[in-house]
Amino acid sequence: MDGDDSLWYIEPYTENLRFEYRVKKVLYQGRTKFQRVDLFDLHAFGKTLFLDGKLQSAQIDEMVYHEALVHPALLSHRSPGRVLIAGGGEGATLREVLRHPTVEKAVMVDIDGELVEVCKEYMPEWSQGAFEDGRSEIIIGDARKYVFDTDEKFDVVISDLTEPVEEGPSISLYTLEFLSRIYEILDEEGLYVAQAGSADPLYNKFVTGLYRTLREVFKHVSVYVTFIFSFQLLWAFVLASKKKSPLSIDLAELGNRMESRGLKELYFLNAEVMKGMFSLPNYLLRDLKRGEIFRDGKPFIWQA
Amino acid sequence: MDGDDSLWYIEPYTENLRFEYRVKKVLYQGRTKFQRVDLFDLHAFGKTLFLDGKLQSAQIDEMVYHEALVHPALLSHRSPGRVLIAGGGEGATLREVLRHPTVEKAVMVDIDGELVEVCKEYMPEWSQGAFEDGRSEIIIGDARKYVFDTDEKFDVVISDLTEPVEEGPSISLYTLEFLSRIYEILDEEGLYVAQAGSADPLYNKFVTGLYRTLREVFKHVSVYVTFIFSFQLLWAFVLASKKKSPLSIDLAELGNRMESRGLKELYFLNAEVMKGMFSLPNYLLRDLKRGEIFRDGKPFIWQA
Amino acid sequence: MDGDDSLWYIEPYTENLRFEYRVKKVLYQGRTKFQRVDLFDLHAFGKTLFLDGKLQSAQIDEMVYHEALVHPALLSHRSPGRVLIAGGGEGATLREVLRHPTVEKAVMVDIDGELVEVCKEYMPEWSQGAFEDGRSEIIIGDARKYVFDTDEKFDVVISDLTEPVEEGPSISLYTLEFLSRIYEILDEEGLYVAQAGSADPLYNKFVTGLYRTLREVFKHVSVYVTFIFSFQLLWAFVLASKKKSPLSIDLAELGNRMESRGLKELYFLNAEVMKGMFSLPNYLLRDLKRGEIFRDGKPFIWQA
Amino acid sequence: MDGDDSLWYIEPYTENLRFEYRVKKVLYQGRTKFQRVDLFDLHAFGKTLFLDGKLQSAQIDEMVYHEALVHPALLSHRSPGRVLIAGGGEGATLREVLRHPTVEKAVMVDIDGELVEVCKEYMPEWSQGAFEDGRSEIIIGDARKYVFDTDEKFDVVISDLTEPVEEGPSISLYTLEFLSRIYEILDEEGLYVAQAGSADPLYNKFVTGLYRTLREVFKHVSVYVTFIFSFQLLWAFVLASKKKSPLSIDLAELGNRMESRGLKELYFLNAEVMKGMFSLPNYLLRDLKRGEIFRDGKPFIWQA
Repeated sequence: MDGDDSLWYIEPYTENLRFEYRVKKVLYQGRTKFQRVDLFDLHAFGKTLFLDGKLQSAQIDEMVYHEALVHPALLSHRSPGRVLIAGGGEGATLREVLRHPTVEKAVMVDIDGELVEVCKEYMPEWSQGAFEDGRSEIIIGDARKYVFDTDEKFDVVISDLTEPVEEGPSISLYTLEFLSRIYEILDEEGLYVAQAGSADPLYNKFVTGLYRTLREVFKHVSVYVTFIFSFQLLWAFVLASKKKSPLSIDLAELGNRMESRGLKELYFLNAEVMKGMFSLPNYLLRDLKRGEIFRDGKPFIWQA
Repeated sequence: MDGDDSLWYIEPYTENLRFEYRVKKVLYQGRTKFQRVDLFDLHAFGKTLFLDGKLQSAQIDEMVYHEALVHPALLSHRSPGRVLIAGGGEGATLREVLRHPTVEKAVMVDIDGELVEVCKEYMPEWSQGAFEDGRSEIIIGDARKYVFDTDEKFDVVISDLTEPVEEGPSISLYTLEFLSRIYEILDEEGLYVAQAGSADPLYNKFVTGLYRTLREVFKHVSVYVTFIFSFQLLWAFVLASKKKSPLSIDLAELGNRMESRGLKELYFLNAEVMKGMFSLPNYLLRDLKRGEIFRDGKPFIWQA
Repeated sequence: MDGDDSLWYIEPYTENLRFEYRVKKVLYQGRTKFQRVDLFDLHAFGKTLFLDGKLQSAQIDEMVYHEALVHPALLSHRSPGRVLIAGGGEGATLREVLRHPTVEKAVMVDIDGELVEVCKEYMPEWSQGAFEDGRSEIIIGDARKYVFDTDEKFDVVISDLTEPVEEGPSISLYTLEFLSRIYEILDEEGLYVAQAGSADPLYNKFVTGLYRTLREVFKHVSVYVTFIFSFQLLWAFVLASKKKSPLSIDLAELGNRMESRGLKELYFLNAEVMKGMFSLPNYLLRDLKRGEIFRDGKPFIWQA
Repeated sequence: MDGDDSLWYIEPYTENLRFEYRVKKVLYQGRTKFQRVDLFDLHAFGKTLFLDGKLQSAQIDEMVYHEALVHPALLSHRSPGRVLIAGGGEGATLREVLRHPTVEKAVMVDIDGELVEVCKEYMPEWSQGAFEDGRSEIIIGDARKYVFDTDEKFDVVISDLTEPVEEGPSISLYTLEFLSRIYEILDEEGLYVAQAGSADPLYNKFVTGLYRTLREVFKHVSVYVTFIFSFQLLWAFVLASKKKSPLSIDLAELGNRMESRGLKELYFLNAEVMKGMFSLPNYLLRDLKRGEIFRDGKPFIWQA
């Protein structure tokens, strides 16, 4: 480190807690039609993307987030062929999806084309060529509109969206109405997975409500969690399945699927960890019983 | 929150990453013979103890840390009767130990008597009467000396010490020589558990070395991890057993023990979570193979 | 300094500029009926008082502020006998007034009795016995009411009030109506002086307006400035005189008055500096022409 | 301001006092052979240059610094024709020198050619064409070597150098030996002026020592001070004259010189302010008596 290097990015996580990151280099700062974009090389985390001032993805451990988001859903499916990603601008979710040799087609719908371009140009470590893969189809547009308009069917739908902040583009992508339509475009063995924000007792209204809402639609719904260092939080995901519970797959079968799909050398995830992520602490089990249903007329809005 | 309340505690986690906590009230600031002690009421975490400027324990989630430290070891023993705690000044480790009705005697040896007094006076929420329990014996003194001098035997030894920082009192409590002596004072079914600091890939030399060192001494050694919100890190523990592997106890038996000892209503821990904590991510499994043995002549010193 | 001493008071001067002061000791934190009060021992400035989160007075250089506020007015009067202080809770303005042996009576009217008590107890270095001086009369009450009700006459009136912030107690103490009443309670050779906030080009609406307003009332009005280290700003004062211009007193006469009143050993002020403070930079001269009159119906409200 | 704009430059003024500036845009960051260079557009101050992490010059008030540095010396000379500037990389000192129509030649010697290029490209507001003026001669090189080697004579020498920090390039440009050589290259009515750092009681060893050292060499030596907002400090300068005391010029003559040289419309300086700057507070007068002589063998090194 350079002793004189006194440029810091200060993230007010709440009004009572701030994170300060020393900045090695400013790589990009701008504003798209949808959000403010800041990309820095941080001493602590390497390349790090902030959207609207909130840390979104850091080079040091984006693998943990993306492996945790993608593989439990795809491994829970015997042979996922068609995958839809809502959001996922950095291209790393797409990258992990394409690791599964069973995948024939991966459609990614992101509303912010300018952000996708920034990611392609400045963060190629995330996509690692995924945008150029012949199986990829990139659509710049509104995921809600796409989902309601499409007549395609998918084996897995992955929701890799920002939290539903006030006036943000993702509010209508977590409601009962939208998730019911997701159910319709899934094959009969289809699964849906979403990143669901913080699992911390103080900030878990998003995950508890999304869990509650999905239970109105799907037969099997599970929450799982993992720690993501650069988020400095326990992070939650929700996995929903139309037919078979993901929890019913035993460790041996899981290991076989990882083996056969060439997923033995992931950065973070292995079969035991995948199983372990579904073991939830008592405080979260308690709060999951209290989630509220998100509806189009009364959506969830995340507040710091 | 009070809009004018602009007193902050700034913790430089590393030279490139700082945490800033808004302070509601300064409860105590002082310096004992061994360390600097700061106790604040923080808006984000409630009462929070800092030792030598590093966050040690926060009211909001000390339960996670202390449940994770104590119960896996005690639940792995069929009937823990005699327990030794090295460190543990706040009294919460003692509190969790005493929850087990099998415990007849709990000896706590902490070198910093002034700190113990501060904790008793200002942080009674941690000990909740444990210091006054008839089964407790509190010894103010050097744990190393105690361990080498004692002719008592224990079922479980718990190491609840600070990281081995330069010139700090805990450097000699993690070496092969000391741990060999621990082995001697354990009963034949005895277990040893230690908090082992960060499990983060960048800062895991403590846990990987402690794991390696213990493997020289004990038959069964396991690392487990959990996320602690106020530490903003994945935290590691090492559990060592003389006779039976803790991992060999199945979920049903674990549930039975929790039931029979009245541990069904913990804040965080349940049988599934306890099992899940032993599933380690690939990056940690990889680094655990590279740990170095800590010796009296060449101890580990933690550096920020 | 203590290397582990990481408690800081952060003063957001504006939304784009923050000052961070390392805190040695928290001496007092509370809220009176009128304002929030924070008193710290700062490593950089010694004892320092913050009102509503803004630095008000620091031990390291309160002498500069109080000497600059008091002596130009009192030295401009041949023989000040009766002095009225509006505000001045710390007691240091009173202390400087009482240095003039000509003073027979000094009335201090401060609305915040709780603050005065805090200052007496925790900041005796400011008042240095002034509250107990036989010539002092301390009135806890509204200075506006006092000024309109009194039938006493004064040689000098000193305004040592906080900036006129929204809903603060001093808004009505800077208006044309109030200052006209001040004029009435002054003797025919009387003078009025006020601390008038920042002289910085970006934040000078208070001093320029107060100057403009006083020119409606007094024959002679002058602005003077000095730098106050702990304020980190060039600070403005306005001095108004009924009869003789303060600027007409020559350096020799000023020296004589300081000599005869025993004011040769001040921390900061001497005759040359007092003269020099009235030399204003071009940017301030320019802006003084543009000040707006403050009226009861349209008072000035200071905004960060 | 943009609410999400959370990039800050943090300047640790001392270990107990920090300034935080919100950054609008990073304009340049680099390291020359001699120093680290950071140029930002700050919300509070506009374009602002930091050298080795210390604020050097800000668009909002560089005029105050440069007018205060240049004009007292040049106005104290009846007809300054040849001027030497040591340092002055931004080009603003040169700009102010060239305002005097009497100037026929201005030689600027700066050791850091890379910095001069950065200033030309990114900070043209400072030089405003001065580098291209036919009277300017820019020499990239060591000012000490230039001064000892030259056989030219000058009317005014201006020292616009950084503080003499450890291993910095300016340590040998403030010693008795160097200043004696400056005396030799000045015409018989020549003057020397230097920026002399903080005038604050805590940090005035530079100005008091430089004053003391110059008194060994020159007949007349005066210190003057002004407040510079972006430095957040009272700033000191030392002016030395071979023949006539600058203080002996009366206000009328000063006004005439400003008039005849077209200097009536400066941002900050006027004749009264120039006179007023030489009135020093008691605490500085007291400390000026205690300055130590800087010598080649025992130079002054500035420490935070």
